[in-house]
Amino acid sequence: MRFFEDIGIGDRRELGRHSFTADDIKRYALRYDPQLFHVDEAAAARSHFGALIASGWHTAVVCMRLFIETQRHIAAELAARGEPAAKIGPSPGFRNLKWLQPVYAGDTISFASEVLDKRPLASRPGWGMLVMRNTGTNQDGALVFEFEGAIFVERRGDP
Amino acid sequence: MRFFEDIGIGDRRELGRHSFTADDIKRYALRYDPQLFHVDEAAAARSHFGALIASGWHTAVVCMRLFIETQRHIAAELAARGEPAAKIGPSPGFRNLKWLQPVYAGDTISFASEVLDKRPLASRPGWGMLVMRNTGTNQDGALVFEFEGAIFVERRGDP
Repeated sequence: MRFFEDIGIGDRRELGRHSFTADDIKRYALRYDPQLFHVDEAAAARSHFGALIASGWHTAVVCMRLFIETQRHIAAELAARGEPAAKIGPSPGFRNLKWLQPVYAGDTISFASEVLDKRPLASRPGWGMLVMRNTGTNQDGALVFEFEGAIFVERRGDP
Repeated sequence: MRFFEDIGIGDRRELGRHSFTADDIKRYALRYDPQLFHVDEAAAARSHFGALIASGWHTAVVCMRLFIETQRHIAAELAARGEPAAKIGPSPGFRNLKWLQPVYAGDTISFASEVLDKRPLASRPGWGMLVMRNTGTNQDGALVFEFEGAIFVERRGDP
């Protein structure tokens, strides 16, 4: 992660893409969200979705993984320039997670993250809070997923 | 699930408990949330958490799984009495997910679900929407996790 001071409101970053295969969808859902329209193609075909769809939690955690991988790339880029990377602290939670459209088997979702707000944390010296809007968009350009998450990010510290 | 008409605001149900082992925490996080304090005990000990903690997403999906398993138990109980069970539809999303306290390796979290609101859906005849508050409480009685989720539930239909 870049340091709190180096991040601006409105900064946007592509996090990468993920193709949700039927196997991928069923494997995740069997373990964590075993509803029929996530684990059984025939039952999903008879549901109002008409075909197998990913668990909404699966979509969310793929976004999370890509976010972390993106932060690692940023840290590696900074390291290559001899610059330190900021630590990411815990997330206190998020707001307004929306599953706007189904994610069907075979869909490829592009994830992105945009900084909505930032503020220093009086209660945690050395840290600031970012509010990010994270989104997933399918191959047809339809927004399928979004949430506003808060994370703690390290500050450069006193000059 | 019971039918929309048979569910009351304030209804509360225990969903069950889950013990988060270090292996369980690391296995989930390696795949979906590979931050150091979720996957590496030594690094976690040096972090401000002081020990390995579960990914917040891991806590959330364990709650989801227990919710689905609870609905299956309810459906089985209804079936044993010769009564039909209601279908659960998709969730449009949720609000105000909060990770209030860390979930450490070895913690046992008890999950529960309470109905905050219910209303018929004009846009989907035959379905109603429930707003549920889902919570996780650790073995010391501390609330560690909560979110408000909306789900669609089948109505009994016209009499």
